[in-house]
Amino acid sequence: MKNYLDLSYKPNNKDVLASYYLEGKGVSIREAANNLAGESSIDTWTDIQTLSKSIIRKLKPSVYSINGNYVKIAYPPELFEKGNMSQILSSLAGNVFGLKLVKHLRLIDIKFPKDFVKSFSGPRFGVEGIRRLTHVEKRPFVGTIIKPKLGLNEKQHANVAYEAWLGGCDLVKDDENLTNMKFNNFKKRVDVTLKMMDKAEMETGEKKLYMPNITSETLEMLKRADYVYDAGGNYVMIDILTSGFASVHTLRNNTKLPIHAHRAMHAALTKNEKEGIHMAALAKIFRLIGVDTLHIGTAMVGKMGTSIYETLDSEIEIESKRTKRHDHAFSQDWYGTKKVFAVASGGLQPLMIGKVIARMGLDVVCNFGGGIHAHPWGTRAGAVAARQALDAYMNHISLKEAAKTRIELAKAAEKWGI
Amino acid sequence: MKNYLDLSYKPNNKDVLASYYLEGKGVSIREAANNLAGESSIDTWTDIQTLSKSIIRKLKPSVYSINGNYVKIAYPPELFEKGNMSQILSSLAGNVFGLKLVKHLRLIDIKFPKDFVKSFSGPRFGVEGIRRLTHVEKRPFVGTIIKPKLGLNEKQHANVAYEAWLGGCDLVKDDENLTNMKFNNFKKRVDVTLKMMDKAEMETGEKKLYMPNITSETLEMLKRADYVYDAGGNYVMIDILTSGFASVHTLRNNTKLPIHAHRAMHAALTKNEKEGIHMAALAKIFRLIGVDTLHIGTAMVGKMGTSIYETLDSEIEIESKRTKRHDHAFSQDWYGTKKVFAVASGGLQPLMIGKVIARMGLDVVCNFGGGIHAHPWGTRAGAVAARQALDAYMNHISLKEAAKTRIELAKAAEKWGI
Repeated sequence: MKNYLDLSYKPNNKDVLASYYLEGKGVSIREAANNLAGESSIDTWTDIQTLSKSIIRKLKPSVYSINGNYVKIAYPPELFEKGNMSQILSSLAGNVFGLKLVKHLRLIDIKFPKDFVKSFSGPRFGVEGIRRLTHVEKRPFVGTIIKPKLGLNEKQHANVAYEAWLGGCDLVKDDENLTNMKFNNFKKRVDVTLKMMDKAEMETGEKKLYMPNITSETLEMLKRADYVYDAGGNYVMIDILTSGFASVHTLRNNTKLPIHAHRAMHAALTKNEKEGIHMAALAKIFRLIGVDTLHIGTAMVGKMGTSIYETLDSEIEIESKRTKRHDHAFSQDWYGTKKVFAVASGGLQPLMIGKVIARMGLDVVCNFGGGIHAHPWGTRAGAVAARQALDAYMNHISLKEAAKTRIELAKAAEKWGI
Repeated sequence: MKNYLDLSYKPNNKDVLASYYLEGKGVSIREAANNLAGESSIDTWTDIQTLSKSIIRKLKPSVYSINGNYVKIAYPPELFEKGNMSQILSSLAGNVFGLKLVKHLRLIDIKFPKDFVKSFSGPRFGVEGIRRLTHVEKRPFVGTIIKPKLGLNEKQHANVAYEAWLGGCDLVKDDENLTNMKFNNFKKRVDVTLKMMDKAEMETGEKKLYMPNITSETLEMLKRADYVYDAGGNYVMIDILTSGFASVHTLRNNTKLPIHAHRAMHAALTKNEKEGIHMAALAKIFRLIGVDTLHIGTAMVGKMGTSIYETLDSEIEIESKRTKRHDHAFSQDWYGTKKVFAVASGGLQPLMIGKVIARMGLDVVCNFGGGIHAHPWGTRAGAVAARQALDAYMNHISLKEAAKTRIELAKAAEKWGI
């Protein structure tokens, strides 16, 4: 392995930069960082004859910062294929996790230069596109995940969706493990749920969204996306990590519909603070690839363990024109890439909505599962309560005050406390 | 959340079983296990009105074993879509990793019933198919990854490949981050490397294999696979985790070529013994989907940190007719699914080959990168040394004895020690 430490190196605006948390195993942080740089680019464990001086001169990475266990590396852009996220990750987040000299490694951030940002499509709709689609200009969205996760047949599913829309939900999404099931056929579900969506739109005068879960083998997934489009649907959803980076990219290139990204399995990569990939880096990657809404947690206590900081860091990555999370992350210019709508979800109930908005802002989709379907009076009342809580927040009325005259909200407060 | 603990439950042969390592956070193992079972199937954090008794009766999971921190859950098969690995993982390895009540969670194994095994294609070639393709009947294969990882142009790449084949390598593979680069165009690389492969086959009289790395957005990846096929190639390789489960499945369904699976990024999921997914479970999943060769580590010390046990557990999953790793894993009948060829790789050099075979058996591809290209006399001599070491092993000659008359092996021994 050659020497790639160059603490005097100043990255330029063509370089791809990566930031890691690193602990060496039996070696110094400098040696571990040097191996990390080599393995993620041009080198290997021994002195290969075929690695010429001219290749080293043109393509060598530079470890330009070591700050305790935080390491930053600059890579010549030629090491990466533009528009190929899988290749980029195979380099920067690939073999390196398994190196023997590495005790702990976490990819904190990647900085993409302009032509790399431009080589990805980004969201087709983004925050503004979704707002245009629904004519909801300022307020957060209220949504629901149909519950139970599995078990309802197509008609029951559509009816629960209808109840949620009637109660005031803007959007309904399938659960992450509901695809094409024996007891609930994908096409039939899409048909009857869209029919009920039309009915709900007529009756409420509001534009509604439905996110059918098309997660599957890639070509089957595209067929399902086409089916939704042909059936008059207005959204698709995909489990981005159990499908994979390449499939999400394929979906972005091959549907005209907005894409909702569910992040099932993310915590296996993001949870341990010394391992894997930071959720905010994943959020950045999926903004580049081009999802329109992304589940990033609730920024508060729900059923999931996602920290407030992780959610807010992710939100910065997906909703800013130019981002900078903290000292170990990079500033990133997005060169006009649209903003992704943050989705807060996981153990939320209506009384929490103000806190979510206070932390995550108005560009947020508040998605309730149990928080709507466990309302003592049922799904519609749960949705009504969620909208009441939202309206109270938007009109600067306290929940206690609002609950005095709004019986669904009062009932929810009785169950969950204000 | 309902009660899913049923330690008297006896799984039947239709159930899908999952085995986990689990630590609760602030709750008992029983409560954590109950939440794990509910979240991975039909339930959520609160008592939803829409979860009827008949759904619970038909679809409820059963936590049927808790042994210290090891938990086994049986799921009715209706919860899963056959042939849809992404959906299966979104259930069994999805949201559950992020649950607040879970401190640590690792998916150790999944047991698939017959009709689920049959719903995936498995390897098109497998061990026997690859052996037929090459007329190499009994001995392990010797392969090389072209090094440096990046930097050679197409012609240089093809020449290094030629040297390796001439020296005795059966197969040559691209590195995991070499795709379609500015300095090395994919199509041109395939063309010139296949041309040199033909030449090497003519000159050695041996059948040779070339695994071009087609990792990319799924449809582009399929185009690259088609390009390799049309150019007369005999193999493709894909980075299975940075591409993703759905894309690998798509490749299996849409190429007639054997598939080599490189596992870059796996350690982010597999390394921590209390988190993520066991490598052997991933190996099982990719056998089901149908890759033909799979990188599983070296079962000895190389540059990677993969433990011997992890490699051997993975090997059991991919090379057995019926598998059983240990008490926390399941016996699995493969119902005729072909065996996957284990690839040992990561810091190997020729002198190690006997140890690898002693541990991993004869159905193994020994892949050398630096171990061939860092031979003091260059790539061809490195490949010769690897074949000499293999021949010595197969003929029960010690390396010391063999090195007396084989100068390339002796030179390698001088560098790395016997």
